[in-house]
Amino acid sequence: MVDITLLGTGGGMPTPYRFLSSLLINFKGRKILVDCGEGTQVSMKMAGTGFKAIDYILITHCHGDHIFGLPGLLQTIGNSGREEKITIIGPSGIREVMDGLMVTCKYLPYEIEIIENPTHSISIFDDDLIISTMEADHTAPCLGYSFYFKRSAKFDIKKAESNGVPKMLWNKLQKSEESIEHEGIVYTRDMVLGRGREGLKISLLTDSRPLDSMIDFYKDSDMLFCEGTYGDNGDIDKAVKNKHMTFAEAAAFAKNADCKKLCLTHFSVAMMEPKDYIENATSVFENTIIGEDRMEFSLKFPEEND
Amino acid sequence: MVDITLLGTGGGMPTPYRFLSSLLINFKGRKILVDCGEGTQVSMKMAGTGFKAIDYILITHCHGDHIFGLPGLLQTIGNSGREEKITIIGPSGIREVMDGLMVTCKYLPYEIEIIENPTHSISIFDDDLIISTMEADHTAPCLGYSFYFKRSAKFDIKKAESNGVPKMLWNKLQKSEESIEHEGIVYTRDMVLGRGREGLKISLLTDSRPLDSMIDFYKDSDMLFCEGTYGDNGDIDKAVKNKHMTFAEAAAFAKNADCKKLCLTHFSVAMMEPKDYIENATSVFENTIIGEDRMEFSLKFPEEND
Repeated sequence: MVDITLLGTGGGMPTPYRFLSSLLINFKGRKILVDCGEGTQVSMKMAGTGFKAIDYILITHCHGDHIFGLPGLLQTIGNSGREEKITIIGPSGIREVMDGLMVTCKYLPYEIEIIENPTHSISIFDDDLIISTMEADHTAPCLGYSFYFKRSAKFDIKKAESNGVPKMLWNKLQKSEESIEHEGIVYTRDMVLGRGREGLKISLLTDSRPLDSMIDFYKDSDMLFCEGTYGDNGDIDKAVKNKHMTFAEAAAFAKNADCKKLCLTHFSVAMMEPKDYIENATSVFENTIIGEDRMEFSLKFPEEND
Repeated sequence: MVDITLLGTGGGMPTPYRFLSSLLINFKGRKILVDCGEGTQVSMKMAGTGFKAIDYILITHCHGDHIFGLPGLLQTIGNSGREEKITIIGPSGIREVMDGLMVTCKYLPYEIEIIENPTHSISIFDDDLIISTMEADHTAPCLGYSFYFKRSAKFDIKKAESNGVPKMLWNKLQKSEESIEHEGIVYTRDMVLGRGREGLKISLLTDSRPLDSMIDFYKDSDMLFCEGTYGDNGDIDKAVKNKHMTFAEAAAFAKNADCKKLCLTHFSVAMMEPKDYIENATSVFENTIIGEDRMEFSLKFPEEND
């Protein structure tokens, strides 16, 4: 299971009624924050997410509404007692921006590693999660992200017995070891494991135009978090000009990429009630949710209920 | 009259229940912001103060809770249509910090002038306001501020008549001209003005220990905004160690400096209800107010009701 908290759903600038778009992924107690505009740490406090377990901070792009909360958050994480390294992943330019921001918080009790514009997927959390990026289409260098949570194969008791694996080795083989030698016989992991199980694909696209060339990257996402800066179909010209999307465009993109579910976020400051425009999305892609600050999702692996 | 809005009253880090300490001075429609922690622009939005008329931003010191809101605010001011220069005044180090922060907002439609650790008073708003600074006693270079709003002398009709000043020159002489020659006679300003009137002194001290050597600078303030990080007298050791003050210390300081009124601000995150500790201040200096976010003050000149 993967837990996700939408910390904010606003774009442009922070307002009294909506935090800036940011989300927190919680996988087995380890956390990944995506984007950090001014106030994100306050929303985290309201959501009670804690600060210490954030291992990765992923930045889509270096516009203020996605990064100005970073110095404050990094200090608050420092005050939480964290001493382990934090890795920040971002687009071209992230290192220069971080060098600038860090002038204001020079003394953190942990190291910061920066990965600028990664060209390969990054495998983390003991290879349980693969983070991939692609180039989005915005007014600044911008990354789209996908998170593939792998699911280990299930223990198969019949297989273990038929392979004559001693019971005392079952747990060890399933959990961590590749192979174990016991009384002169080598037992391998596949002697106790059934077929591989499908993982979970969660993806995110903000801020960007929806290009056909991006569809492959987002294909078959179990859940897509996507910007929907403008709810009104009539705002299409603004969307094109400012390199954003309307609700209808995001919905069409989710449909074309065969996503299972779409959650819209990054709403324009001018749009007080994004829900007023939900039909512009659901008429194109039914399984659409309008994101709200501190909305929580518990996403299960496809076979988690087996 | 001078209007002041307490935008926030918290110290340390932003929380869901209190914005970080910051105040906005409004004098004849021109504005001065003092300190700008993360979220200050949101509090300004809640207070409806507007952004475009901020001519000066004064920073007490470069700790995050006093500066991390700057990049976002500067961008929002840019979006408000401002094109006139903004002057930022701060302690030693402010230029390096601003250089760092500005990496994240390179394209502002107005110029930023930085005055680092001013050694002389600064006269602004057509000499109607004198800003003075002194060195506070904190864990980083820190400035205390005083604002002296001058009051022009009142027009004295009897004096103007007895000096034989033609009526057509009265208004001109009172408002702007030093002297006017009319039909061969030179009329001077003091021919129409009565005695000078007392101005208004507003001052601010955060974050700092209260040192006796500072009393002269704060002497006779009509209103002192002062940090009171700890309400409980028992927190005196923390106050000494962290270079802050207790309520009782701030009250004693206001009393010793013969201030007319004290408003406490910059409350510790751990202190949920600062008002619970008000007696620790009022028992020392009766005219003490516990600041609250978006509390507003209209301060009149001593003789404004004449």
